[in-house]
Amino acid sequence: MSKKTLQPPRGTRDFYPEDLRLREWLFSHFRAVARRFAFEEVDAPVVEHAELFMRKAGEEIVDQLYHFELHGRHLALRPEMTPSVARMVMARAGALRFPLRWFTLTQNWRYERMTRGRKREHYQWNLDIYGEPGVSAEAELIAALLQLLDAVGLAPDDVKVRINSRALLEEALRHGVLRERPDVFEPLCVVIDKLDKIGPDKVTEMLVDPEGGVGLDAADAAQVVEMLKARSLEEAAAHAPEGSPALAELRRLFGLLEAYGVADRVLFDASVVRGLAYYTGVVFEAFDTGGTLRAICGGGRYDGLIETLGGPAIPAVGLGFGDVVILELLADKGLTPKLRRELDDVVYPFGENERPAAIAVTDRLRREGRAVELILGSPKLKRVMADSDRSGARQVWLLGPDEVGRGVAKVRDLGSGEEREEPLPG
Amino acid sequence: MSKKTLQPPRGTRDFYPEDLRLREWLFSHFRAVARRFAFEEVDAPVVEHAELFMRKAGEEIVDQLYHFELHGRHLALRPEMTPSVARMVMARAGALRFPLRWFTLTQNWRYERMTRGRKREHYQWNLDIYGEPGVSAEAELIAALLQLLDAVGLAPDDVKVRINSRALLEEALRHGVLRERPDVFEPLCVVIDKLDKIGPDKVTEMLVDPEGGVGLDAADAAQVVEMLKARSLEEAAAHAPEGSPALAELRRLFGLLEAYGVADRVLFDASVVRGLAYYTGVVFEAFDTGGTLRAICGGGRYDGLIETLGGPAIPAVGLGFGDVVILELLADKGLTPKLRRELDDVVYPFGENERPAAIAVTDRLRREGRAVELILGSPKLKRVMADSDRSGARQVWLLGPDEVGRGVAKVRDLGSGEEREEPLPG
Repeated sequence: MSKKTLQPPRGTRDFYPEDLRLREWLFSHFRAVARRFAFEEVDAPVVEHAELFMRKAGEEIVDQLYHFELHGRHLALRPEMTPSVARMVMARAGALRFPLRWFTLTQNWRYERMTRGRKREHYQWNLDIYGEPGVSAEAELIAALLQLLDAVGLAPDDVKVRINSRALLEEALRHGVLRERPDVFEPLCVVIDKLDKIGPDKVTEMLVDPEGGVGLDAADAAQVVEMLKARSLEEAAAHAPEGSPALAELRRLFGLLEAYGVADRVLFDASVVRGLAYYTGVVFEAFDTGGTLRAICGGGRYDGLIETLGGPAIPAVGLGFGDVVILELLADKGLTPKLRRELDDVVYPFGENERPAAIAVTDRLRREGRAVELILGSPKLKRVMADSDRSGARQVWLLGPDEVGRGVAKVRDLGSGEEREEPLPG
Repeated sequence: MSKKTLQPPRGTRDFYPEDLRLREWLFSHFRAVARRFAFEEVDAPVVEHAELFMRKAGEEIVDQLYHFELHGRHLALRPEMTPSVARMVMARAGALRFPLRWFTLTQNWRYERMTRGRKREHYQWNLDIYGEPGVSAEAELIAALLQLLDAVGLAPDDVKVRINSRALLEEALRHGVLRERPDVFEPLCVVIDKLDKIGPDKVTEMLVDPEGGVGLDAADAAQVVEMLKARSLEEAAAHAPEGSPALAELRRLFGLLEAYGVADRVLFDASVVRGLAYYTGVVFEAFDTGGTLRAICGGGRYDGLIETLGGPAIPAVGLGFGDVVILELLADKGLTPKLRRELDDVVYPFGENERPAAIAVTDRLRREGRAVELILGSPKLKRVMADSDRSGARQVWLLGPDEVGRGVAKVRDLGSGEEREEPLPG
């Protein structure tokens, strides 16, 4: 077998016990916060029909789809959960009670160039609310992501949530540079999303490029980039039409976030538009205030998605929160938890004659719910004691011929070093 | 979008909240038993290099591989976890402490013909012990699977574990019909494994078929099939060579299982060989005693696998336990648990003026760890009460203008129907 075959494919991960413990620790927080916010978990296949993920706005996520023909079908590894969840909502739209709160915790794939520690798979926690058109839904999602950050040990100042509204941008552009080109709004957002990565000059260039799907003239492109500089609702109001509904909505959202007690952890930022085509309203992203990492999580409103799948109009808002960036941030801050193997008892028969008695002890302890390692084979006592110490066991049950003859086991507490005798079962 | 695209691909499943609750209930038992038996969880990529799964013994699992070329690589969705776990053990063999106990709980894919309710993906709980050559390891796995059956509510008589040893069969054949053809033992086992499905005549035919990879003469094939009829160690001894080590091992295993108190739940069955090529020693399968379902789980010893990957000789024994058959059995017996949504409180602001107070109540309850649904939008009280009842909430917090004006909420207990007032936070 080739050496390559003995590695996980490039960009994917093996999870050894210590890696899995860290993953499960993070997942348990994701699940606990979802439960507190009354979200119900759902899941869909890892492999879907590729068409479900195809969109025309030039998104990276579509370009990077892991897709292939198999048995005459065009299939894809899901790059994100939102289309699958939308498909599930649509299939039972008549029977479900809205608004509904669903969450997923799944692995997704993107075939990315391998740069800067990016992977080709990651786990993502998704929260979606379907059926609520108002920003009280957005407020719930933002409150949930902040509770997750608290739960994993970050301080309120470590991360801020930047909020904008595509509807606000669209209103402004529809009265301005896109008056005659409303169809290019989606690809325009996909380009603007690259601002942090490639800078304003390159974004302007891409907005002008006739091949790039937008094709503004230079003055219009410069005006769009200028608008993205607004960092307060007051500055944004300068570009908004009179009585802007999107502006009123944003004001209402910030008001609700004050009631959650998180006003100092959120801010307006006109440059946040997100890189997915389907967002239609409020969008948001959380960033480390140190400014060294990519977005920790993000989301927004996508009221039109189910309609584009051919279903009814159902308003929706969602949040996606990956496992990679948050774990990088925790590591940078020295907050990665030290998680030991969970082991209560080690049971050690000195020889095969004592094994039946050791099995009886082990079985009784396990039926009490304890985590018990029964020593297999015939290692030396010294080795058993060293391994037990290392693995974090609480106590070791020693069953030698003398003890078993007397119907007892010697029990050594690895914390205190004390020994006692316990009667054998039966 | 085509109608087909809006369904999960054929043979795969969506998990709606009620499906996911059942899956999580089963998974929580898998994890709890693994913990009690001191197994540590690991994971590997869903997509591996296809070569990792390729073997030459004509196994169904290899024929049914979901594989494809992508960006110049030959990749596959894993059909089973054992090769991935073996790869991980091999990569760190020098640093790991043996014997080690690892478990996985993962989704695997097989591109099967869609018959008799078979699916193309399933979840499987795998327990593996690496580094222990003796049957004390097999005994641990069999004890663990029986504890799982107990945990999900089955009675001891509902399921039996049938045990055999490929080593015993190999010893007998090496002194008999395979004296000059030891190389066909693996494909011979793959054929024998079909006995339950296709019957003895068809198995004999396949053993004889010169195209089938075994090519015995008719008398030899009949003799092999005859040997599979043994249902006790005494009957098996008739075919075993003098002083058979495999027979001694089996006797020892049954002795250990007596110490676990499960002697009446296990039996010898010479026809059990398992359909995977890599097993080398003890093999076992659990069946419902009603005899209506496929094997619930199975496993065995595969001491040679890491060597075939190019690594050192590390003895290994494993168990695979899928989610589909056990859930069918529980359903047949009326043991499927009724699992309701977990929801403690519903908080209902009568209007937008009361929303900030409702948010403060919600936030306090969630920080106490309670599962709380804050009502979004402006549904009618009647609708909120009906939905709260249906979703199993314990209490509803009602915040009308009068209550909020007096700094209280009215709290209705949905169990007792009683109402009380609670002061609002802050």
